[in-house]
Amino acid sequence: MKSQLTILKVGGQIIEEKDSLKTLLKDFSLIAGNKLLVHGGGRAATDLAAKLGVKTQMIDGRRITDEKMLKIATMVYAGLVNKNIVAELQALRMDAIGLTGADLNLILAEKRPVGKVDYGFVGDVKEVNAPVLNDLLNQGYTPVLAPISHDGNGNLLNTNADTIASEVARVLAFDFNVRLIFCFEKRGVLLDENDENSVIQFLDRDLYAQYKEEGRITAGMLPKLDNAFQAIASGVKEVVITSASHINTGGGTFIR
Amino acid sequence: MKSQLTILKVGGQIIEEKDSLKTLLKDFSLIAGNKLLVHGGGRAATDLAAKLGVKTQMIDGRRITDEKMLKIATMVYAGLVNKNIVAELQALRMDAIGLTGADLNLILAEKRPVGKVDYGFVGDVKEVNAPVLNDLLNQGYTPVLAPISHDGNGNLLNTNADTIASEVARVLAFDFNVRLIFCFEKRGVLLDENDENSVIQFLDRDLYAQYKEEGRITAGMLPKLDNAFQAIASGVKEVVITSASHINTGGGTFIR
Repeated sequence: MKSQLTILKVGGQIIEEKDSLKTLLKDFSLIAGNKLLVHGGGRAATDLAAKLGVKTQMIDGRRITDEKMLKIATMVYAGLVNKNIVAELQALRMDAIGLTGADLNLILAEKRPVGKVDYGFVGDVKEVNAPVLNDLLNQGYTPVLAPISHDGNGNLLNTNADTIASEVARVLAFDFNVRLIFCFEKRGVLLDENDENSVIQFLDRDLYAQYKEEGRITAGMLPKLDNAFQAIASGVKEVVITSASHINTGGGTFIR
Repeated sequence: MKSQLTILKVGGQIIEEKDSLKTLLKDFSLIAGNKLLVHGGGRAATDLAAKLGVKTQMIDGRRITDEKMLKIATMVYAGLVNKNIVAELQALRMDAIGLTGADLNLILAEKRPVGKVDYGFVGDVKEVNAPVLNDLLNQGYTPVLAPISHDGNGNLLNTNADTIASEVARVLAFDFNVRLIFCFEKRGVLLDENDENSVIQFLDRDLYAQYKEEGRITAGMLPKLDNAFQAIASGVKEVVITSASHINTGGGTFIR
């Protein structure tokens, strides 16, 4: 029988507030079975860029990563955010290991080809090193993945954390019963973005298609939901989209 | 029979120049047997601090680490420097893994007690997790250690990279034939600091004591040499102090 694996993706504001992050990590540590965490960087990268006079360019919610921004992302994501999470998890007696896609060649990516938009040093995932992640998990470690990948030629690349979470979930679904939790500001996917109580409790592919057609799901949610359904299609048991305070309470949007 | 392990400590200017770093890492990759790299941060942390308006305070060559400086050190050492080295080593087909002392609880430290000087968030090494480092090495991985440790209570600490290199060398000497190379700007320990050709080719404890008494070794070298002799006393086979371009040529100061 396959072991349970919970993959938690955290990003946004939660990461920036030491207390809320601590509470979330505590909740995370209470989940039974194998665990893996993927984090974004929140506003810290944008803030540091501003302090350094580096302009942040976003297109459709995606950051344009020039050389300076890649350095900042590497510092903030792989350094500051990643290592503080690892230290907190160690204090909770979880044997965490913070990694980027370059470490152990975990996530090989290729620089996104320049089309209508030049995203700069953004990496599209080519291959996740499932055997090595399996080994780490089977040794009882908790991998903590920063949203930085590499191209195998010595270059780091910036890769969306949601994408990393769902790609990792997909390849690990061969060996584990994977539950993927996307943790963000809202309590789930909302049918009415102005009503926090309009959380969709359950979504499958048909319902998703219907809501999309009806324009009831906001554009910002679409990449996350597309990632979620790709994960389900690859054998991930369940995807949950919920808020930091509900990762253990059964609240949020369940996707199967 | 014990396997060979080469531990290379790099710091200073070499790290800041992409080409010189690349050459050094190439030379490193050519060394036979198990390998482990420990790096400092060079001036990058000081430069970033200056850009952010954070003052760098040094006492006896040691950085005073206040909260802001710890953040900067974590970003630069654990993020920027560490991950770029890892990506370069991966491109050289070495299966590198970048780690701080928090990852896998590798280096447990305690905040240095406030004495005459308050060093701030500086960690004195309490324990190196030898079994885990052994496992990583025996799996064929090349650990790349940043000079950041943790206290086990969720706090990161700044720890001198020379100290990490020699502490790691000491505990790994039980299981490996360890050669520890300190790579820095000069070609070795100089008898006359103004003469690059006055490299001391061989140093043992007696000769070191004699040179110290005669005042022939500059104060800046003493911590490095004390670290070296502590490593030898703990079973490290050989310590070499040399420049980046001589790690494979047999040049430098040999300490046994």
